[in-house]
Amino acid sequence: MKKTDNDLKILRHSAAHLVAHAVLELYPDTKLTIGPATEEGFFYDFLPKQTFKEEDLPKIEERMLEIANRNYPITHREISKEEARKLYHNNPFKLELIDGIEGDTVGLSCQGDFCDLCRGGHVESTGQLKHVKLLAVAGSYWRADRTKQALQRIIGTAFFTEKELNDFLTQREEAAKYDHRKIGKQLDLFSFHEEGPGFPFFHPRGKKVLNILVNYMRHLHDKYNYQEVSTPTMLSDELWKRSGHYAHYKNNMYFCTIDERNFAIKPMNCPGSILIYKSRPRSYRELPLKLAEFGHVHRHELSGVLHGLLRVRAFTQDDAHIYCTVNQIEQEVTTLIKIIKDLLKVFGFDNIQIALSTRPENAMGSQELWNTATAALSDALKNAKCEFTIAEGEGAFYGPKIEFVIQDSMGRSWTCGTIQVDFMNPENFDLTYTSSAGTKERPVMIHQAIYGSLERFFAILLEHFKGQLPFWLSPTQIRILTISDSQNEYAKKIEAILKENGLRVEIDDSSDQINSKIKNAQLEKIPWMIVLGQKEADAQTVSVRYLDGKQKMGIKIEELVDQANKLKVF
Amino acid sequence: MKKTDNDLKILRHSAAHLVAHAVLELYPDTKLTIGPATEEGFFYDFLPKQTFKEEDLPKIEERMLEIANRNYPITHREISKEEARKLYHNNPFKLELIDGIEGDTVGLSCQGDFCDLCRGGHVESTGQLKHVKLLAVAGSYWRADRTKQALQRIIGTAFFTEKELNDFLTQREEAAKYDHRKIGKQLDLFSFHEEGPGFPFFHPRGKKVLNILVNYMRHLHDKYNYQEVSTPTMLSDELWKRSGHYAHYKNNMYFCTIDERNFAIKPMNCPGSILIYKSRPRSYRELPLKLAEFGHVHRHELSGVLHGLLRVRAFTQDDAHIYCTVNQIEQEVTTLIKIIKDLLKVFGFDNIQIALSTRPENAMGSQELWNTATAALSDALKNAKCEFTIAEGEGAFYGPKIEFVIQDSMGRSWTCGTIQVDFMNPENFDLTYTSSAGTKERPVMIHQAIYGSLERFFAILLEHFKGQLPFWLSPTQIRILTISDSQNEYAKKIEAILKENGLRVEIDDSSDQINSKIKNAQLEKIPWMIVLGQKEADAQTVSVRYLDGKQKMGIKIEELVDQANKLKVF
Repeated sequence: MKKTDNDLKILRHSAAHLVAHAVLELYPDTKLTIGPATEEGFFYDFLPKQTFKEEDLPKIEERMLEIANRNYPITHREISKEEARKLYHNNPFKLELIDGIEGDTVGLSCQGDFCDLCRGGHVESTGQLKHVKLLAVAGSYWRADRTKQALQRIIGTAFFTEKELNDFLTQREEAAKYDHRKIGKQLDLFSFHEEGPGFPFFHPRGKKVLNILVNYMRHLHDKYNYQEVSTPTMLSDELWKRSGHYAHYKNNMYFCTIDERNFAIKPMNCPGSILIYKSRPRSYRELPLKLAEFGHVHRHELSGVLHGLLRVRAFTQDDAHIYCTVNQIEQEVTTLIKIIKDLLKVFGFDNIQIALSTRPENAMGSQELWNTATAALSDALKNAKCEFTIAEGEGAFYGPKIEFVIQDSMGRSWTCGTIQVDFMNPENFDLTYTSSAGTKERPVMIHQAIYGSLERFFAILLEHFKGQLPFWLSPTQIRILTISDSQNEYAKKIEAILKENGLRVEIDDSSDQINSKIKNAQLEKIPWMIVLGQKEADAQTVSVRYLDGKQKMGIKIEELVDQANKLKVF
Repeated sequence: MKKTDNDLKILRHSAAHLVAHAVLELYPDTKLTIGPATEEGFFYDFLPKQTFKEEDLPKIEERMLEIANRNYPITHREISKEEARKLYHNNPFKLELIDGIEGDTVGLSCQGDFCDLCRGGHVESTGQLKHVKLLAVAGSYWRADRTKQALQRIIGTAFFTEKELNDFLTQREEAAKYDHRKIGKQLDLFSFHEEGPGFPFFHPRGKKVLNILVNYMRHLHDKYNYQEVSTPTMLSDELWKRSGHYAHYKNNMYFCTIDERNFAIKPMNCPGSILIYKSRPRSYRELPLKLAEFGHVHRHELSGVLHGLLRVRAFTQDDAHIYCTVNQIEQEVTTLIKIIKDLLKVFGFDNIQIALSTRPENAMGSQELWNTATAALSDALKNAKCEFTIAEGEGAFYGPKIEFVIQDSMGRSWTCGTIQVDFMNPENFDLTYTSSAGTKERPVMIHQAIYGSLERFFAILLEHFKGQLPFWLSPTQIRILTISDSQNEYAKKIEAILKENGLRVEIDDSSDQINSKIKNAQLEKIPWMIVLGQKEADAQTVSVRYLDGKQKMGIKIEELVDQANKLKVF
């Protein structure tokens, strides 16, 4: 029988109990807290007498397998809270958990002489937990709250079969090899510094790639009639109260005081865009009005989850807001789906999963408005000939949305591309336009992001392409390598021609040997090397060596330019 | 005899006494504070019983002229502090001033029965003060400190001759007519909102112009081997302590707390650039290393001095830092002077004044280092065939600098372009490079800014060009106006050709009459209008109407593209 996602979750939650069981056998003084399944496996947070180290993991893992081999049946029963409090009288974490559970009883799951508080959902016996692997130890906090007790987290994973586990570990190894943080350092693209945790510094080559991503998006803006704006980094907190961010997002925002007045550093660009919309009366003739912004936003993340460019505290969104009528949603979203799919394809992401999230229970706006908007999104997806799934009830409370999930070259999934209909902000900010009949009407807003975060998209690309960006995205596209100084003049001539044609080119006329020049260019992942010897200078041709080792000898410079132009994306 | 700047300062300071004299005669209960000369005139801060209004100014001005006609001799004498304290026993401001003056005596200047505390420097009699004009009233604070007594400021100006005064008033009127804040609103370029005082919002057309300014600078970066980087908006305050900003600039900075640690929102980009320099070891082969950044910085300004885009609290610098050896300064600065002069010329600023500021008394770094660096700047100016003045002792304490002052079309002066040598930061941050001999050496930093603040430069351009930006800078360069719907298809064809050639073009195919279409395009200052009737559609030509009213009929589209290409700046 095919295993479902839920089966896997149950397996992994059982594996979390298994690690707790093993830890208690090895370190009986340890206090248990919680151990949930996660996206990629499970973890368990402990308060041990000593600090767990990476080198303790094999021993714990060995004991886990031993317990698995003992093949204990796993039982589950409900016990009274009173009984549970007795059982955990010296574990304040479990006592707090017991207090937090509704009703008079709590669940207890047992295997052999090990028991743990538990809501239920387990495999039948420890014998089913043989394909487990411990992956890391990390610091954590009780209730993920820095002001509370520091804990030790053991992170692991579990699968149904050995093959699945091995595939996962191979992919993980592969991903580690092409970790964008490693590539970023090797290629001198960006850095992080203790002076700004979670705030990336972009070095010349990294900034070049970001600029290309921005320019490509601007090219699409021009093509599809988006207009770029820019709004301030800080705005007064009254605005964020009105937008609802203060009530729902305050803990992820940074604040600042000016002249005794509170300002928030923007976590999103919408309120700024809305102030521009409201800066003068709007007519139906202007709709759909598409205002785009490369907005630099700050959002708090716990220091423990910061992860290179994938998880930062400041990033640039390719944000846009479409102000339109309800009737225009379908047309606008159809175009937008096309833009997103075309863009993702350009980066080699062909395998795209699309989900349409519909009305949740606590939604705002009438059922009729929701029906119209959801049908518009659904029709737009059909217009664009997209297969999609329905995520029933998973829309935001202020409108339905479409999400695009891509798969990278290592099989990992990333959400890139969101289309969010919004009935709330137009209400909150009393947005209006004058209709053709002269009446004041309320527009709808559509929020869109395609790259999402430019920084994160850059990281995904680096890992997806394993550091070797496509020609059009490479910070340096061509390096000219001279065999001796006699070719320097010819090299400059070629450089000038290539630059004139908009190519990013540089010369290596150092005193290094040609082989070491080639090796350096390869290490720096420069797509094309032009090797210039006297033969080429005499014949006024060039020889090109590609990163994969292929070569083309004696080609004319115009041919080379043609070849490069064919790789142009915009 | 030619009057000097100092003579004018003396005249204006005397005019400040005159306004105080007039106010005391009209409002005897008023308390006097201070009244200095300023760049454009003078002001006097009062604590009156009532609030001065604009409509009070003519009466006060009339009284000033009356006192001028009385032609009182103006005398000056030193009196003991004791005597002065008696004189001002009921004026706490003057008493505070007296306490602040060194020595046992203070100066007193008198005309008729009016006396005022004063260091001296006056015209001989009130009869010389006939060309005065009161310009405005404003709120101010004692010692410019918001926590101290609120005062009333009367602002005015004075000149030696009636002609000078009239010229000034005409220029002022002209400037008011072309105030960039007015143009910004008319052309829908930007706005300010109560939710972010001093933080500009750029609308599509304004953002387009800013992007062109950025792209032009990037074009120069490529040409002159600058490399663009980007650094975080917030960095920890330890960094700002090390850089000296915390000690010298703290009151102009905004702060923010993350995880109980203090961060400053960057007022400058240098420390970020330095962290990138330090992110790996540097070799002499890399020098000069030119790192540029379009850095978005925040600097506090009092709310009273905020002035459109000219004085804001957040702006984008076209910043760059050259890391080089002392011996490379001359060559680098020579190139940089050329870049600055060429750029300013492109915007029509031909009248450029240049000043070289030399070693101040409290300088850091050896006399020898200063001599070398100052000579390098001076030689660079000579290499670039620039006339310049020496501002003796006016350099920053950490290095000599060159400043460029332009004159706009209304005769006003603006500092645009700074080259600042810096010995301090390389010391503070222990910057090094490995010399060809393998030793660790200290580089020099050169700070440069050409536009300075992009926002301020944009404001200067708007006023300089009186709202009519040159063709290459215009957000919309060409608008196609159809006479009837029959030309819509032809209009689209022309639009496509122009767009392909990189021109910013739009179509007005509304149902408006052609005359009203022309009028709209004129109001929006669109440089070229293409008027399309059936004649043009049949002949496959276009007629162009320029903003100055000139027209060209029946020209071919290729000709038009050629004409546009000739106006390209980059």
